Amino acid sequence: RINGDRLWDSLMEMAKIGPGVAGGNNRQTLTDEDAEGRALFQKWCQDAGCTMGLDQMGNMFARREGTDPEALPVYVGSHLDTQPTGGKYDGVLGVLGGLEIIRTLNDLGIKTRHPIVATNWTNEEGTRYAPAMLSSGVFAEMHTQDWAYDREDAEGKKFGDELKRIGWRGEEEVGARKMRAFFELHIEQGPILEAEEKDIGVVTHGQGLSWTQVTITGKDAHTGSTPMPMRKNAGLAMARVLEKVDEIAWSHAPHAVGAAGHIDVFPNSRNVIPGKVVFTVDLRSPDLAVITDMENRLRVAAEDIVEEMGLQIEFEKVGGFDPVAFDETCVAALRNAAERLGYSHTDIISGAGHDACWINRVAPTAMVMCPCVDGLSHNEAEEISKDWAAAGADVLFHAVVETAEI
Amino acid sequence: RINGDRLWDSLMEMAKIGPGVAGGNNRQTLTDEDAEGRALFQKWCQDAGCTMGLDQMGNMFARREGTDPEALPVYVGSHLDTQPTGGKYDGVLGVLGGLEIIRTLNDLGIKTRHPIVATNWTNEEGTRYAPAMLSSGVFAEMHTQDWAYDREDAEGKKFGDELKRIGWRGEEEVGARKMRAFFELHIEQGPILEAEEKDIGVVTHGQGLSWTQVTITGKDAHTGSTPMPMRKNAGLAMARVLEKVDEIAWSHAPHAVGAAGHIDVFPNSRNVIPGKVVFTVDLRSPDLAVITDMENRLRVAAEDIVEEMGLQIEFEKVGGFDPVAFDETCVAALRNAAERLGYSHTDIISGAGHDACWINRVAPTAMVMCPCVDGLSHNEAEEISKDWAAAGADVLFHAVVETAEI
Ligand SMILES: NC(=O)NCCC(=O)O
Ligand SMILES: NC(=O)NCCC(=O)O
Repeated sequence: RINGDRLWDSLMEMAKIGPGVAGGNNRQTLTDEDAEGRALFQKWCQDAGCTMGLDQMGNMFARREGTDPEALPVYVGSHLDTQPTGGKYDGVLGVLGGLEIIRTLNDLGIKTRHPIVATNWTNEEGTRYAPAMLSSGVFAEMHTQDWAYDREDAEGKKFGDELKRIGWRGEEEVGARKMRAFFELHIEQGPILEAEEKDIGVVTHGQGLSWTQVTITGKDAHTGSTPMPMRKNAGLAMARVLEKVDEIAWSHAPHAVGAAGHIDVFPNSRNVIPGKVVFTVDLRSPDLAVITDMENRLRVAAEDIVEEMGLQIEFEKVGGFDPVAFDETCVAALRNAAERLGYSHTDIISGAGHDACWINRVAPTAMVMCPCVDGLSHNEAEEISKDWAAAGADVLFHAVVETAEI
Repeated sequence: RINGDRLWDSLMEMAKIGPGVAGGNNRQTLTDEDAEGRALFQKWCQDAGCTMGLDQMGNMFARREGTDPEALPVYVGSHLDTQPTGGKYDGVLGVLGGLEIIRTLNDLGIKTRHPIVATNWTNEEGTRYAPAMLSSGVFAEMHTQDWAYDREDAEGKKFGDELKRIGWRGEEEVGARKMRAFFELHIEQGPILEAEEKDIGVVTHGQGLSWTQVTITGKDAHTGSTPMPMRKNAGLAMARVLEKVDEIAWSHAPHAVGAAGHIDVFPNSRNVIPGKVVFTVDLRSPDLAVITDMENRLRVAAEDIVEEMGLQIEFEKVGGFDPVAFDETCVAALRNAAERLGYSHTDIISGAGHDACWINRVAPTAMVMCPCVDGLSHNEAEEISKDWAAAGADVLFHAVVETAEI
């Protein structure tokens, strides 16, 4: 078994970097806080005897050697970046869980045939730079590196420039590494495991996602002196579209979800009718046909709304991935580990996207989840128990070591 | 008659300070650009032989002496601050129209019995600091100066500190000045004069306003892994409230308008269900009972919406003024001037709030308006013709000089 206290202490130590305003974290990708978190992870990995690899997307690979120089490594990890008002576990548990495996192997003096590589993927969250899972996506050849470097944050700063600025752009070519397997431990971010009182979720599938950025253009005008019939109120049109998004998602519930988390209104002045709004609609389902249906209905409904109001609309797909089925051998390794260790477990579909969803395209991949309190995530109040964290890391440990062969 | 070319040239010169991105201006109150605009106005006034007074709210008073040392001055002016994406004329025409009167009197060598004071009121727009017409409001004892100094912009910078920082906080007590009358020239900011092909609007009344800042609190949560029934989506609740605002305003149209120009969503991340939204509802009518009815219905409707969704709501009134009836003698002076000069004119109700609305409480006050293209204002594309500007300033000139007595 892994050392649950040590894992927990490391989680708490990492959470001191980029503290939030309400007990969580704001350690967004490619900020100074991200750099500080990376440096701490690197130090810990070096203390555990690993050598650190760094690729041109800033992906970090801490390698513990195996006994067979020819054997492909088993990779294990997640991401250290957080939401602007994020929790202490989303992503971090998976990275430090990987490190804990290596520390435990060191404690036990166990050598594996295959090397083990604890991994931190850059910009999983996708808040500062859309899309989410950007760097695992480049690794899996879903995006080009040039395209990724050109992504801009809200202030117009480019991903490539910021990666260089914080000092974590490596030399290594992205995606060149071959993997025996990739495992990711993550908190569920949903309510199922807690409700079913299961210690462990064995992730068999991941739902797909579609991010559509919608721009509605009306006409800035005075809120006082512009008669109602003359208004081209982009904010009102957005309100109508948001209602439709909810209606469309519900029409497929429980096999779909939909909302808009990102909304910018221009010029955002109390006495100016909004002339422009930009917002991103997030639609998800485990079923690709449902996603496609929702995307189409969103466009038709939104076009009808703006046409009736005499406004303009544009759609841009700024992120997305298809539903995922994870590797059956890797899934079985996790399920067997949970069974063997005596943890209650259930198969589960991931509601969120994860780096594992992209890596699954280039290597045998699976995920294990632990519960989180009230299913709450992407919230500073995100919480898990030490026991849940330890159980997840234990299952990860056994599956990784089995795959890496003693 | 005033010199229309000179007035126009001054308008174009002032518009060079704080240029916008689309041909208009971004010269928001208490910015460096505001300071620069004030300095230019001061220079012009001094060149025209005026002495400049400056009060503790930054209100500027450029005085041309009269022949009778005992006589109360006639005040004439408006504001030099603009919206973030504002036009070149909203406010500026009224200030430079006042200056043009003084320049014309100098050209003609005319002395008036009463002094004439060209005035620039601080923070009329209310975008950076709510409420609008803040400093004329302090002048008219509608707000205390301490309260005004404590207003905060979106970055938490206080009005009092910013006024000091830009170097335009004077020593003079606010509101100490007694006025024979106050006249304000302004662009209509609405479509009526252009549609009726009138050169001049004689403003008899101003409609009242209510600004309610609404805060809806839900729960930040993951857009992917949070099932639809568990969501507390503050953005969706806002959408429903915005639809109600529109419905309520239409129910009183054409005697009311309503919209929300200011909307902030938190944490504003693509994959976080909004846990909080803050937005300001702007409701207006020339009839106080209609405003009260709309405010009440807004609160009831919004409370019903959030209650049904299991969210929380708070309301804060961040601005407002009652409908205004201007001084009949001043109104008649403007109407007679338009008639005498042969300009087509009509009586009109102001849809927007103006400094004149507050000053009307402490001095005989009236306003004159010129048309603007397509009724468009609070938009960088705001446009007027040189002839319209000159006609408005001509009428202003005659009414002011008549009131100031030759
Ligand atoms: N796990 C997680 O929150 N990933 C971010 C991408 C997504 O929105 O699903
Ligand atoms: N004239 C003008 O735009 N004033 C700002 C206050 C208002 O919103 O009416």
